[in-house]
Amino acid sequence: MLSAAARARLTVVLVGARNPSNIGAAARAMQDFGFSDLRIVNDYAAPFEAAQLEDAATPKSAVGAASVMQRARRFSSLTDATADCSLVAGTTAIGDRDLQRDILTLQQATPQILGSLTSDPQPRVAVLFGSEKTGLSKEHLSHCSLLLTIPLFAPEDARHLSMNLGQSVAVCLYELTREGLEGSREIPTLHEAAATADDRERLTQLLLDVMHVTDYTRRFPANAAEPLVRQLTQQLGTTHREAMTWMGILRQILWRERKQ
Amino acid sequence: MLSAAARARLTVVLVGARNPSNIGAAARAMQDFGFSDLRIVNDYAAPFEAAQLEDAATPKSAVGAASVMQRARRFSSLTDATADCSLVAGTTAIGDRDLQRDILTLQQATPQILGSLTSDPQPRVAVLFGSEKTGLSKEHLSHCSLLLTIPLFAPEDARHLSMNLGQSVAVCLYELTREGLEGSREIPTLHEAAATADDRERLTQLLLDVMHVTDYTRRFPANAAEPLVRQLTQQLGTTHREAMTWMGILRQILWRERKQ
Repeated sequence: MLSAAARARLTVVLVGARNPSNIGAAARAMQDFGFSDLRIVNDYAAPFEAAQLEDAATPKSAVGAASVMQRARRFSSLTDATADCSLVAGTTAIGDRDLQRDILTLQQATPQILGSLTSDPQPRVAVLFGSEKTGLSKEHLSHCSLLLTIPLFAPEDARHLSMNLGQSVAVCLYELTREGLEGSREIPTLHEAAATADDRERLTQLLLDVMHVTDYTRRFPANAAEPLVRQLTQQLGTTHREAMTWMGILRQILWRERKQ
Repeated sequence: MLSAAARARLTVVLVGARNPSNIGAAARAMQDFGFSDLRIVNDYAAPFEAAQLEDAATPKSAVGAASVMQRARRFSSLTDATADCSLVAGTTAIGDRDLQRDILTLQQATPQILGSLTSDPQPRVAVLFGSEKTGLSKEHLSHCSLLLTIPLFAPEDARHLSMNLGQSVAVCLYELTREGLEGSREIPTLHEAAATADDRERLTQLLLDVMHVTDYTRRFPANAAEPLVRQLTQQLGTTHREAMTWMGILRQILWRERKQ
């Protein structure tokens, strides 16, 4: 269960993202999973400014990432962007990079990230994502105390594995919030009354009646034995309301048959 | 561990997707996680054809979703698109929709989907995603035997929650493959030799020497006690290679100091 305070201490850093739409998509994924601190490391301001303009201009922003984009900040170096972070985790594809460092799966890395977010006194954790084209460079990864990868389908002949940037951010934040988000709405459950044995029995008798009046019983006696029919009605509706609906249907058939 | 055969039996159905880029993004997510059967339900062919053209025309397709898009099929009705599926799961946002049906979280729904994919004799499972604008309608959801939602951050005042289509598909397929993909490459682990107690002891002695020759020991004797220094050197490198690097650094300092 990730608290609002812990979520506020997670920083998503996009390093060298060039496509404004991808910056916007990352911001939207952050908003979806309750995160707010987005930092862009880029030598030039154009993609960041374009993403902010795009977000402000399109109606998407109403449901989208408006507040994340408004608070986002640009840095010219990764050192500056992560200066206040106690844990820096880098995301990387497993390619033919000769990293000489262990890479954890996202699932393996998550306890360490969540542990840092919730245990230290004033921790801030950065999760780094590289550019769409090249990912994080070796130099970028040298800033990271933890490397992680999203396990992808990788046949032996696939050399260049990489995910769409917005999708990577969404999957990482999904995993980090997978055990629950504090202060979020519960998914409403219906708690509807289940069908009772009495409902089942009434359905059984009604179905037997229907089989009888429609001449099914005479034509297929082997299928019309009461235990078989009782077993059949186990599948009719799981809730009391559904069972009542089925009863209505069967009664209507009986009524039609008896009227003739 | 999801086998290649089981993955081949999972169908992603996009219902009413209007934006060709979103169809392409869904296809790319499928390729990333090892799925191949994409079906588009749309009254008109334009978005589907545009997505195929876009995929064929851009260099993205080289690393992207070329084979998924090539095999994708369009249907004019949801009934046709899911005719051969034994389990139909619908994704939905928890909005103010009055569904009268239970909705599972993605995590809760996954065992049932994986169970269907792996246990029946020739099962096919469809996972449905609605359009970017409206999601799946009540009519669409009535085709589903299972409803699921990706838990999002939802403060009480947020009424319209929905994720980007490509991101939704990516997160769902990530969860379905989270316990592993058969036939995929393992993430290489280094299995590098860990630093030994002997390495640690040599580092401790070297660090004590450095403290001595640099006059640190005289100025801060409380910090220079051997047990404290030994504890400090626990932090110097986790592998033998890193420990050796640290020794080299310390020896260099000693050499410089002694030369003076």
